[in-house]
Amino acid sequence: MAGKIVALAGGVGAARFLEGLASVVAPSRIYIVGNTGDDAEIHGLPICPDLDTVSYTLAGLAHPERGWGIRGDTFHCLQALTRLRAATWFQLGDRDVATHLYRRERLRQGATLSQVTREIRAALGIRAEMVPMSDSPVRTRIITRRGELEFQNYFVRRKARDAVLGVRYEGAEQARPAPGVLEAIHGAAGIVVCPSNPIISIGPILAVPGIREALRQTPAPVAAISPIVGGRALKGPAARMMKSMGWRASAAQVAELYRDFLDVFVLDGVDRDEARRVEALGIRTVVTNTIMSGVPQKKALARTVLKALELA
Amino acid sequence: MAGKIVALAGGVGAARFLEGLASVVAPSRIYIVGNTGDDAEIHGLPICPDLDTVSYTLAGLAHPERGWGIRGDTFHCLQALTRLRAATWFQLGDRDVATHLYRRERLRQGATLSQVTREIRAALGIRAEMVPMSDSPVRTRIITRRGELEFQNYFVRRKARDAVLGVRYEGAEQARPAPGVLEAIHGAAGIVVCPSNPIISIGPILAVPGIREALRQTPAPVAAISPIVGGRALKGPAARMMKSMGWRASAAQVAELYRDFLDVFVLDGVDRDEARRVEALGIRTVVTNTIMSGVPQKKALARTVLKALELA
Repeated sequence: MAGKIVALAGGVGAARFLEGLASVVAPSRIYIVGNTGDDAEIHGLPICPDLDTVSYTLAGLAHPERGWGIRGDTFHCLQALTRLRAATWFQLGDRDVATHLYRRERLRQGATLSQVTREIRAALGIRAEMVPMSDSPVRTRIITRRGELEFQNYFVRRKARDAVLGVRYEGAEQARPAPGVLEAIHGAAGIVVCPSNPIISIGPILAVPGIREALRQTPAPVAAISPIVGGRALKGPAARMMKSMGWRASAAQVAELYRDFLDVFVLDGVDRDEARRVEALGIRTVVTNTIMSGVPQKKALARTVLKALELA
Repeated sequence: MAGKIVALAGGVGAARFLEGLASVVAPSRIYIVGNTGDDAEIHGLPICPDLDTVSYTLAGLAHPERGWGIRGDTFHCLQALTRLRAATWFQLGDRDVATHLYRRERLRQGATLSQVTREIRAALGIRAEMVPMSDSPVRTRIITRRGELEFQNYFVRRKARDAVLGVRYEGAEQARPAPGVLEAIHGAAGIVVCPSNPIISIGPILAVPGIREALRQTPAPVAAISPIVGGRALKGPAARMMKSMGWRASAAQVAELYRDFLDVFVLDGVDRDEARRVEALGIRTVVTNTIMSGVPQKKALARTVLKALELA
């Protein structure tokens, strides 16, 4: 098996799954394509929340519960910014600031986001390959009754309270996949869509011209893990967003969103009744425990997915 | 007495003197013109070491011994930058980073350095007026046998070890005094050149076209406090620099550098023998204790200077 295991990844859910995956296969076999649709500029710093959540998790630095930032980080810079009357609704730890300062400086020097992402990954000792979905900016805008909101404004500042009427991936039409992404998909041994929000985590990746097409055409098997369990998202606003956008908040609905390229759908035991609906779309299903409550569960899920992709 | 007390200020020596001054006159009567010749860009952040040393000191936040940064600050961001293999010879505390992030963001939004300096000062509760010498960049370059060095490279990275053959204030010719500086000098009740390095702290201020001329022409009395005591600088490389540039490292030499605009020179008791030499230049002298070892000494020096300016 020469090809890599390509993973399309959002934030926390993806990071947890990838942690399990990296402990059951050689990390160097993993090629992660990260969402940058929720990137933002805060205090002039380029923040890549999903890339960083995955990096920090794989480096063993992630905060265990919070879903963002670095374990044990302090917030002295943020407190001082508050004193300077800067808007500080977006939490930035002191060690985390270093990542963004480094990224900003390298981008300013002319490096691409792919290059910087690789540098950060190498410096943190991560052996899995990691690239952003694109080196060009793509920004997810949330359409609400109040108008269009920047993603972090909707998500962090307004605490994902607004009903989501739609999303728009600004810049996606002009974006190109990061160097190597299409080749990795074409030559993959298998592809995993991580258990991430289909609208705001996987949606932006699929909106980059060429990526969805490559997923349809690759000879590699494509599996997705449902981020919806029992009609609810394990983390984040996925279920509410799906409902307010007029969809069902169900595992089967997620499979439907990926039906044009999906071979296998991995869903939780509580959703076994939905398997038939998914199978009716021509997608194979694997029913298992998808709740990654600890290391054994993460590893077991990774092994199940590898098996579904016929890689184990 | 309507006019203000205008102070030309470098870093630590100036900050200590101004702390004393602000405790014996109403701080709102003080108008500080700060050196920006040693400003630098570090990790893409605009660092203004002298402005910040003065602000932090007047706000009661300064580290008591170190001469830079904030008391009790942590260095988690810097440690994380080291991990990312960034060059971290320039120490930046986490709270200090906030000042530079704020400044960078406001400058990017189009604010001038004067505006940002006033905002920081207000946020930190400083009642003295504070402006940079200029809103345009002026950068002190140090001429050594190894060629020309950026100031912080010479000062921090190379620990001021190189023999200084000369200095060049890059950008000074095109620079204009910050708004209000010339008017403040013209309308001042009195002017103080703080006990700062005459070459790298006061030199850049005097190199901004119009400032030296205004000091010559103002009706206000101009006093300077010697930063050299007993042939040595209390802090920093002033004495060594003066010698390697072919001057004497003496209080009288400092007075000579300011002779075209100076009315009164305040020098330490150990240098009383130099008073005659200074008087011969047509400059009045006041011999006192200039070593600001504690609060009483700072206040006493401030009172002596006010008296020398006939303001007390």
